[in-house]
Amino acid sequence: MSFGEILKNVVDGTDGALGALVVGLDGIPVDEYSIASELDIQAMTVEYSSLIKEIEKGSQTVHLGSTKEVTVMAEKAMVMLRRLNDEYFMVLIIKPEGNFGKGRFLLRMAVPKLLKEF
Amino acid sequence: MSFGEILKNVVDGTDGALGALVVGLDGIPVDEYSIASELDIQAMTVEYSSLIKEIEKGSQTVHLGSTKEVTVMAEKAMVMLRRLNDEYFMVLIIKPEGNFGKGRFLLRMAVPKLLKEF
Repeated sequence: MSFGEILKNVVDGTDGALGALVVGLDGIPVDEYSIASELDIQAMTVEYSSLIKEIEKGSQTVHLGSTKEVTVMAEKAMVMLRRLNDEYFMVLIIKPEGNFGKGRFLLRMAVPKLLKEF
Repeated sequence: MSFGEILKNVVDGTDGALGALVVGLDGIPVDEYSIASELDIQAMTVEYSSLIKEIEKGSQTVHLGSTKEVTVMAEKAMVMLRRLNDEYFMVLIIKPEGNFGKGRFLLRMAVPKLLKEF
């Protein structure tokens, strides 16, 4: 399966999902699948890649080890970031009323499939 | 109930919880309750208050509105941050094998109780 297909499966399988992407820690997206035209995926990519680096630094500073997953619940969306390897992470964006648990499950299931494609 | 008692209830009610604290966005802790001596609560406080500000800025930049909750799953602990108001947030730290769902539930239940004390 290609990156795009794996991302599509996660988004289609999650009630309320708006989009998913694979991004490098440098902020450069590898692939994305979005069903919400109002989402500024480009801006999100840049913003969250710098965020995940900050969080990683923070976790290391307080001796919690490396970060595996981060979720941000904001007013207009829930954003879930999952580390793929040292250089890439996956992002899933869900509406506030969407199925967060299902999204998290599918995101975790997608990790080994995505890693196979690297 | 005092801050300390509310925090103690959350920690005691959550399997695997290591500690909880109320912190200002400026990084100054208001109160804390910890059952793990190895936790560097002071360092965490400073680190996570700067983190929550970064995340807030990020969410605003990508037009997701203000941040209500952030969870970080690291190797050695899960850290849950919940916004209380414009100036304060609450942090709950749980072991990786702890009861994350119960912690999140108790954290949310604690918010109105903590707000009454401000």
